[in-house]
Amino acid sequence: MNLSRKILAELETPCIIIDVEQVRRNIAAMQRAADEAHCRLRPHIKTHKTAFFARMQAEAGAAGITCAKVSEAEVMAAGGLDDIFIAYPLVGAFRIRRALVLVSKLKRLILAVDSLAGAQALSEAAREAGLWLEVRLEIDTGKRRTGVPLEAAAGLAEAVAKLPGLELTGIYTFKGLLYRGAGVSDHELAAREEAELLEQIAQEIRRRGVNIRDISGGSTPTALALARIGKVNEIRPGTYIFNDIMTVQEGAARVEDMAVRYAATVVSCPRPDYAVIDGGTKCFPTDTPLNTLPGNYPGYALVEDPVSFETADHLRLDRMNEEHGIIRSTSGLTGLSVGQVITLVPIHVCTAINMQNSVYLLEKGAVRRQVVEARGMLV
Amino acid sequence: MNLSRKILAELETPCIIIDVEQVRRNIAAMQRAADEAHCRLRPHIKTHKTAFFARMQAEAGAAGITCAKVSEAEVMAAGGLDDIFIAYPLVGAFRIRRALVLVSKLKRLILAVDSLAGAQALSEAAREAGLWLEVRLEIDTGKRRTGVPLEAAAGLAEAVAKLPGLELTGIYTFKGLLYRGAGVSDHELAAREEAELLEQIAQEIRRRGVNIRDISGGSTPTALALARIGKVNEIRPGTYIFNDIMTVQEGAARVEDMAVRYAATVVSCPRPDYAVIDGGTKCFPTDTPLNTLPGNYPGYALVEDPVSFETADHLRLDRMNEEHGIIRSTSGLTGLSVGQVITLVPIHVCTAINMQNSVYLLEKGAVRRQVVEARGMLV
Repeated sequence: MNLSRKILAELETPCIIIDVEQVRRNIAAMQRAADEAHCRLRPHIKTHKTAFFARMQAEAGAAGITCAKVSEAEVMAAGGLDDIFIAYPLVGAFRIRRALVLVSKLKRLILAVDSLAGAQALSEAAREAGLWLEVRLEIDTGKRRTGVPLEAAAGLAEAVAKLPGLELTGIYTFKGLLYRGAGVSDHELAAREEAELLEQIAQEIRRRGVNIRDISGGSTPTALALARIGKVNEIRPGTYIFNDIMTVQEGAARVEDMAVRYAATVVSCPRPDYAVIDGGTKCFPTDTPLNTLPGNYPGYALVEDPVSFETADHLRLDRMNEEHGIIRSTSGLTGLSVGQVITLVPIHVCTAINMQNSVYLLEKGAVRRQVVEARGMLV
Repeated sequence: MNLSRKILAELETPCIIIDVEQVRRNIAAMQRAADEAHCRLRPHIKTHKTAFFARMQAEAGAAGITCAKVSEAEVMAAGGLDDIFIAYPLVGAFRIRRALVLVSKLKRLILAVDSLAGAQALSEAAREAGLWLEVRLEIDTGKRRTGVPLEAAAGLAEAVAKLPGLELTGIYTFKGLLYRGAGVSDHELAAREEAELLEQIAQEIRRRGVNIRDISGGSTPTALALARIGKVNEIRPGTYIFNDIMTVQEGAARVEDMAVRYAATVVSCPRPDYAVIDGGTKCFPTDTPLNTLPGNYPGYALVEDPVSFETADHLRLDRMNEEHGIIRSTSGLTGLSVGQVITLVPIHVCTAINMQNSVYLLEKGAVRRQVVEARGMLV
């Protein structure tokens, strides 16, 4: 990223800076690759949580966007997005009520189900409101979280398709197993498995007389391989817009594709071997190390050298409290001083963005504030 | 907490519910104990991050409040609090500018320093603005994060006291070592050590001709022991207002003193041995297990039985993604169903509150929304 001491001096820290020009390149590259594979791209907004970036994706050719929550979809609708898939089982009367309000405001709203109970509640609400709701069925292709198990998928699809008020138009999955430190070649393998499972389920469902059109899959590491295999007609990657240490380690992006940095101020250097920065667990997420092998990542963000902006391998952000980030030097000498502004690279950028009320956008050598309107949306 | 199925049906989940009546009891108990020990109580707002609760603490007799960040102090000032200590080294020109604006709006603003470089920058800004700033010196009594090391404390105090524009009126510390799973009896010991270290430093500082008045210490587990020992004249506990599994495990609160619960909706039950709730790492913090021994906590929150509201020992929230909380049953049978609303107990309530844009307040059997105005304040 094209940072300078002059830009850093303008920031209120701790904060996140997003290189808008790099973002445009990342968006264009994924869109071009999807287009070449004749596959629709419906990016997941979980990474940026900002209508500004969602519009940028739509303008580049995305076929709508993906959200996880109805409250996120509301923010995106207010920001001018009109084709939204909420890729998460829509359960709870409060949530259904909000989705029904949203449906009239959009060109297309797709909801998700993964159980008969959930689909029935949605069906009843749709009938009461005199509406038809477009739904997709979530399939569990191995991650063991939401999604109907493979062996029950076709039966559930048939039952859902019979419910009044619902139109079942597709199936989708999220294949997340390879996030556990898989190498590049495994993505091709994972994508192939995902494609075959989805195709098999889709055929079974169609055999039962349910004419589904959309088969949707793909996270950032698998999206392009999946699109090229040709058995899905939609991919939903999210992280590719910014990238992070995770996507680089997975071989899904190059170091120069990472469009996001933290900036933090050194507030205390009590001893030569450690320094304290003004961000802790309120600023740097702690989710990634919990889902990976210990030691796989060298800390909660990669510390960069304050002069060269290259990764400073001897500096480790490996202890935090809410407001304290303790940077330890493995050489015994941090070289940092009170008041210095340093930069760091996020490990997992989606959860990093979620912790910021606003971010700085860097464009043409200048920074400006951007509110992250859909951060913290839980409902 | 006095929850009922009727109340749970009114909530939009995932969310946090705070029992206001229990909060009042917790505030009153700590205030009474501090008063009896003739020690001032300056609660840390990091736990609630809400002016509504800060005013409740002030009205009960607190001698001002404590914040960690200048942006938190701004929110509290706007909410009517007028005596604020920002207990964190105030470093960075942007932060100093905001503190200078704040000083004229408050009856009393106390800032913190722990380095000569930090104090000099503050001094220069104060002189330029033609203001006197009240400061306290942070002492590191063992936690190895911010705070001047013991051996350098008196010398730094003398140097800070000579700087124009600054009035050094006290010292403070945060003794956090015992958060690593200490037992009840250790609090007395830790408080005694903290009290003796602070008294010793204060005497050395006074011997050098710097007449400091305030000696401030204490987290929730040590606060009362510290107040009773009589060597400090101010304590700054935070968590006592709500309490959580951590404070209960530390012996600093009883189970019935916990004033906070999560509510979440079961969105998916794909197999009998696990279920998925609508909150993941965006809702449940993951900081606590990182600073404790693995296995010390049975998950990211304690799951309660949906009927009895007692802790359901066989249900474990021990795997999460951003929007997915996977509850596993050690018996092989969760007994949960799609659409059900369940309650959970926070492990670390401070970071839990920070993830909520708003919370529900429960009072007289009814719930209402309360915005958490100071959540996510990083600057």
